[in-house]
Amino acid sequence: MESKKFILQEKDIPTAWYNIVADMKTKPLPPLNPKTKEPLKAEDLYPLFAKGLVEQELNQTDAWIEIPEEVRDMYKLWRPTPLVRAYGLEKALDTPAHIYFKNESVSPVGSHKLNSSIPQAYYCKKEGVTNVTTETGAGQWGCAMALAAKHFGLELAVYMVKVSYNQKPYRRSIMQTFGAEVIASPSMSTRAGRDIITAHPNYQGSLGTAISEAVELAMQTPNCKYVLGSVLNHVMLHQTVIGLEAEKQMEMAGEYPDVLIACFGGGSNFSGIAFPFLRHKINEGRQIRVVAAEPASCPKLTRGQFQYDFGDESGYTPLLPMFTLGHNFAPANIHAGGLRYHGAGSIVSQLKKDGLMEAVDIQQLETFKAAVLFAQAEGIVPAPESSHAIAAAIREAEQAKLEGKPRTILFNLSGHGLIDMAAYDQYLAGDLTNYEVTDAEVARNLAELEKIIK
Amino acid sequence: MESKKFILQEKDIPTAWYNIVADMKTKPLPPLNPKTKEPLKAEDLYPLFAKGLVEQELNQTDAWIEIPEEVRDMYKLWRPTPLVRAYGLEKALDTPAHIYFKNESVSPVGSHKLNSSIPQAYYCKKEGVTNVTTETGAGQWGCAMALAAKHFGLELAVYMVKVSYNQKPYRRSIMQTFGAEVIASPSMSTRAGRDIITAHPNYQGSLGTAISEAVELAMQTPNCKYVLGSVLNHVMLHQTVIGLEAEKQMEMAGEYPDVLIACFGGGSNFSGIAFPFLRHKINEGRQIRVVAAEPASCPKLTRGQFQYDFGDESGYTPLLPMFTLGHNFAPANIHAGGLRYHGAGSIVSQLKKDGLMEAVDIQQLETFKAAVLFAQAEGIVPAPESSHAIAAAIREAEQAKLEGKPRTILFNLSGHGLIDMAAYDQYLAGDLTNYEVTDAEVARNLAELEKIIK
Repeated sequence: MESKKFILQEKDIPTAWYNIVADMKTKPLPPLNPKTKEPLKAEDLYPLFAKGLVEQELNQTDAWIEIPEEVRDMYKLWRPTPLVRAYGLEKALDTPAHIYFKNESVSPVGSHKLNSSIPQAYYCKKEGVTNVTTETGAGQWGCAMALAAKHFGLELAVYMVKVSYNQKPYRRSIMQTFGAEVIASPSMSTRAGRDIITAHPNYQGSLGTAISEAVELAMQTPNCKYVLGSVLNHVMLHQTVIGLEAEKQMEMAGEYPDVLIACFGGGSNFSGIAFPFLRHKINEGRQIRVVAAEPASCPKLTRGQFQYDFGDESGYTPLLPMFTLGHNFAPANIHAGGLRYHGAGSIVSQLKKDGLMEAVDIQQLETFKAAVLFAQAEGIVPAPESSHAIAAAIREAEQAKLEGKPRTILFNLSGHGLIDMAAYDQYLAGDLTNYEVTDAEVARNLAELEKIIK
Repeated sequence: MESKKFILQEKDIPTAWYNIVADMKTKPLPPLNPKTKEPLKAEDLYPLFAKGLVEQELNQTDAWIEIPEEVRDMYKLWRPTPLVRAYGLEKALDTPAHIYFKNESVSPVGSHKLNSSIPQAYYCKKEGVTNVTTETGAGQWGCAMALAAKHFGLELAVYMVKVSYNQKPYRRSIMQTFGAEVIASPSMSTRAGRDIITAHPNYQGSLGTAISEAVELAMQTPNCKYVLGSVLNHVMLHQTVIGLEAEKQMEMAGEYPDVLIACFGGGSNFSGIAFPFLRHKINEGRQIRVVAAEPASCPKLTRGQFQYDFGDESGYTPLLPMFTLGHNFAPANIHAGGLRYHGAGSIVSQLKKDGLMEAVDIQQLETFKAAVLFAQAEGIVPAPESSHAIAAAIREAEQAKLEGKPRTILFNLSGHGLIDMAAYDQYLAGDLTNYEVTDAEVARNLAELEKIIK
């Protein structure tokens, strides 16, 4: 068999992140102050975020932003990650398509999230911050942030969405092993948490609620900043190391993807692999289909609306331009906890609006079927989130077979599922279900949103 | 910072395994037929093991055995693995020692065990075998075997030691996701299991008992072979890819280990990293200290006796020459399930007897303290088994500091602990304990053994 993996050396770790905003013909709309509806200035964001990160967040001119040496050194913990030709999956599907995946699951916490937690902790530390707060869904971001916080000597409190706190206790333990404090969200420790517990006593939480709690705690704690694992521009920026490496590796393989796929929650792993490839589409008109795979139970890109909305459930954040289901949308308790978010980041939302990318929504059972097939064919148990990308890639590969036309598919394996095995147990026992979202539910939520935002 | 990782390409995956027996001045004693006490012939082993594996087991002449192309192709799933300079750990210990570790935890099942499960499944398949049985402790071997069996189209039944079956349910799920059947051992499905349940109703199992059950099922199933994850010569052989890669990588780093450390259960990861280095000690007299780190609660190398014993609890296997505590030794329920085995493989036992290596025993609390320090310093949560190697490496690094003398330490990180987080929870909560083995207990067990073997 030809080579399975395309391996880079440490010297090939990118030296700069790629800032797609600099190249976008239509820039994303600015974040707004909810009260004045005026575009936010950097100063407005300084209380909540480290200055170095705010500068990256608002940078619309520099296409390349240098990666600090201390960050690049930490990337060497596990980067560069392999690009893998999925011969086993191709064979199992009997498809003429060539399938590649970028294996971000090899990071020591099992996902791509470290790519951004490290620079976020670095800039906080550099500016003399001592404490940070954050939220986490399935726990991938929380584990990554806990590792980075420990390395840079920051105290960390993590609000973990309650349904995942119970579904995935090992991720809680990993955060604690790295020295972080973990609180199930909604909690009684914040006003945001108490309010929602009072209104909905059995609410199992969502990323939107956990963000509210983390933001509230950050605002009330001295010398403390808030850090976020997705949605924001600077997070997308940090993640571009994925796609920049993948570009070199596809060159080693002698192919270029016809279609590029990643799962979609707030957009971090999607942007990370997609933006470097999209720059050639934007700048040179190079053909590539870019597909975000989102859960059918949380379909903001496929069925949401493009408009200003809050990033969190309680309305603490600025108003962001996004494809959204409304910040009050309560996603079903699917196991892909990292995808249970009502909105999409501003950059991705603009790219989608401008037709530079597309989206598909996938039901839970299809993702687990794809996950088990992938595990048996490639030997890697994928995270439930990443399984959305796998399912979308399988759809493409089956289409290629149907049409008898080869094509090159690249998807991002954003994480492994070794700590999500309770979900696999339920799937194998036939105890998992799909979740339908009705048009009426979406319309009702968006109507409510309009009243709140106005 | 200088390079952290030393990365090889796929072409650097070894093309042959290293058979240390060919180079040993004193060969290991032969396995014996328990009834006749005569040395076993190949034919005696054919009913239980694939012929290709039996040939390797008994080969005392060829120092190099070619790795079949199909096996090498599968190794490309994750090999070569990185060698890492543990700058973080060095800094945390403020030691003049240079510490390196070979990171076998990057395999898709999280440990080194795939190195042998793949060739074992390959030879079974090649000889027309359809079903295989095996045992597993913490589940690392079972997961690796399940992946390999699925790839080569074999049906697999795994007896998993009961204490681990309950402590580590995710590993059970991983095996099931790969399509294997998993049974908690001791079970009612075999005579060996029924006997021990009858005698000790609450017995939580051991590797020795699980081996008995797996062997019994293999003997009663048509076209079925038994496969083993440690102890036997051919398993050690397969694992030498670890040390062969590490040799090249230490060369890249421009250093040679003064001391080489691995944890010790039956000997598979230890032999894998140690044998290639020991060949220079045997053949060229090159200085190196080689240290096996075993649990204080199962101290066969440090406190056991060198003599013939059964490999399993019920006495189904041939008699093997080994350092042993007696096959009836019931190890305490430590979380390092993979190290809960009464004996050591024949080759390692001979090397120990000949003074070519040494051993240390380490208590559970020291291993978890080392594990948390390592996790926080290097970002990788280690398996409880591997933490024995880390603890031993830390002792060496602290000794170097005390003496003010630098030295180069290499240890094998045989696996990650992301699925062992319940153990970390208990440790962080102060709920774990040490386990003492009294001299009287060892003496009583060995006296009993002498009666049985005679």
